[in-house]
Amino acid sequence: MRLDDLPTPCLVLDRAIMQRNIASMAAALSRHGVPLRPHMKTAKSIEVARLALAGQPGGITVSTLAEAEYFAGHGITDILYAVGITARKLDQVAKLNANGAAVTVITDDPDTARAIAAHPAGPRALIEIDTGEERGGVRPEDPALLAIADRLGGRLAGVMTHAGHSYGGRSVEDMVRIAEAERAGIVRAAERLRAAGHAASIVSMGSSPTARHAASLSGVSEVRAGVYMFGDLFQAEIHTHAVGDIALTVLASVIGRRPARNRLLIDAGGLALSKDRSTEAAPLDYGFGLMLDARGRPTYGQAIVRHAYQEHGVVETDAAVPADLPVGTKVRVAPNHTCMTAAAHDRYYVVEGGDEVVAIWTRVNGW
Amino acid sequence: MRLDDLPTPCLVLDRAIMQRNIASMAAALSRHGVPLRPHMKTAKSIEVARLALAGQPGGITVSTLAEAEYFAGHGITDILYAVGITARKLDQVAKLNANGAAVTVITDDPDTARAIAAHPAGPRALIEIDTGEERGGVRPEDPALLAIADRLGGRLAGVMTHAGHSYGGRSVEDMVRIAEAERAGIVRAAERLRAAGHAASIVSMGSSPTARHAASLSGVSEVRAGVYMFGDLFQAEIHTHAVGDIALTVLASVIGRRPARNRLLIDAGGLALSKDRSTEAAPLDYGFGLMLDARGRPTYGQAIVRHAYQEHGVVETDAAVPADLPVGTKVRVAPNHTCMTAAAHDRYYVVEGGDEVVAIWTRVNGW
Repeated sequence: MRLDDLPTPCLVLDRAIMQRNIASMAAALSRHGVPLRPHMKTAKSIEVARLALAGQPGGITVSTLAEAEYFAGHGITDILYAVGITARKLDQVAKLNANGAAVTVITDDPDTARAIAAHPAGPRALIEIDTGEERGGVRPEDPALLAIADRLGGRLAGVMTHAGHSYGGRSVEDMVRIAEAERAGIVRAAERLRAAGHAASIVSMGSSPTARHAASLSGVSEVRAGVYMFGDLFQAEIHTHAVGDIALTVLASVIGRRPARNRLLIDAGGLALSKDRSTEAAPLDYGFGLMLDARGRPTYGQAIVRHAYQEHGVVETDAAVPADLPVGTKVRVAPNHTCMTAAAHDRYYVVEGGDEVVAIWTRVNGW
Repeated sequence: MRLDDLPTPCLVLDRAIMQRNIASMAAALSRHGVPLRPHMKTAKSIEVARLALAGQPGGITVSTLAEAEYFAGHGITDILYAVGITARKLDQVAKLNANGAAVTVITDDPDTARAIAAHPAGPRALIEIDTGEERGGVRPEDPALLAIADRLGGRLAGVMTHAGHSYGGRSVEDMVRIAEAERAGIVRAAERLRAAGHAASIVSMGSSPTARHAASLSGVSEVRAGVYMFGDLFQAEIHTHAVGDIALTVLASVIGRRPARNRLLIDAGGLALSKDRSTEAAPLDYGFGLMLDARGRPTYGQAIVRHAYQEHGVVETDAAVPADLPVGTKVRVAPNHTCMTAAAHDRYYVVEGGDEVVAIWTRVNGW
């Protein structure tokens, strides 16, 4: 099967590029001697997980309990569910763990900590720490840290943080600085717990940018990252990788031409690309994605998906619309934010640099 | 089963409100004596289609061939696939039609028109007309209209247009004006075809706002609309319906509290809500959605999802964060753009005003 035989829109995953990204992140972390707990929220695929785990201890991170069930069902048992748990979700976690998984949860809430400790099969838990993102978590110096630890009691296994605000950085220097604040904050939280007599063997931090650029990971026991496997235009803009390292694209067909307005219509719209506008505030605003040729090359310059309707993408070209793009031509679109783009699709068509489909891998979407 | 028993995030569909919306649109069109061809791109559900077809001729509109296959498989055979066709997709359409469906396609491209006519089982086709949206279609006065008709030959059945630019309107007067331009344009295109000796029995127009507000539908043979069944915050902002007529919400759980910043975290983020920002330019900017209580009531005032991460939504309240919203509490979120929000979910949990789940309906996502 070749790309030109595929229905559009669909996801194309270049395994060769992905392998390069995985090796590059592993090398970045091996300098520090710190293992990676890959975040599978982007890929949601067992085949990708196995490749991302090469040379790593074997634990993963997930963003939904559907992912936890899926990966546990495929034999990956050491799972960190990195979204704040609620008491009502503990039964589902307990059931997974009773069936052989070892799902660890996170919380920053005293009442939920109490519910975890009180549950007859309460899982191991990490306390979520806010090291600057200001989304979830308690600050390292917050008195609540020790109160939550007291309530978790024997369930407490450590601390975790996510420097999601690294996405607001715009230079390598920014990333180095944010990574150090993330490291220092999570280590400080662990030290406070230990000084109060609590166990804190797990000191988990990570985001793709800070994992890539951290100058030191001293005191950190593991790093989490996910987007790095595939990359996207936004990550390229913030220097997490090069534009040529984007492994995931959307295959689309040209479905209309407006040469007088330098416009093409493609059959990848807001559902196939997502409505994510991550690059809006980046140096280069890629709209809803950058149109490439069918082989994934930037043949058409700044051909940008400027409007995204449900099933229509409007591509605006900076030069005349190429005559070699009649209705029906296949093109590819590099996404703004690969986690969001992948989520509307149920499978990957896997290539290795060329246009032959060498595998089809399914995804676990939903909740 | 009650809403409080459901895993979050998930879709809640209030059948009573949807039925009211369906009846209201049917009444608006019956004033004109023009039938509705409901667009199933929003609902993607056979149960919803059956309700939307009450009192109508029975044909539907779809936005993907996956929808066409699904609905044909459930016995709805009269289907308009309202996204520009490509030559490569004709085999799939022909196969559907060979199995008993009657899928009509659209095109605005002379080469594709020739391919439709040349295909041994080429489907019936409409020419897409641009009545002001400037997305797809030829203008009613464009010489290309007759060239495309000539190439389609016996496959030509009429014309269609979509006044998607009605979404840019902000008053009922805007909608009335845009609807009349849509009507006049599509009728003019049909008249030009007839004057040149072509068949043009189908004169199809529609968008939810123009379907609702058209002052005349003279010369129009059918109207298409989809969002109206569910409604959303954006449609309410542009006067297509009232805020209380939003039938679709996302059920979520509170997963974090930041009272000092008037913030709550919920487990509905960019995937569960979509990253759609339709209301950004509307009178009221609802961010990524409006948080309601678990029964769907606006108990918390302007509690708006201001940030949407993959699985986290950050709600900002205009007053203090209510004490009766501890971690674990169920809430609901009214979406900006219901077509986009529904697409990440595989099913509807159906209620009838209350919190009892009276049915579960599945959706046909993907392509």
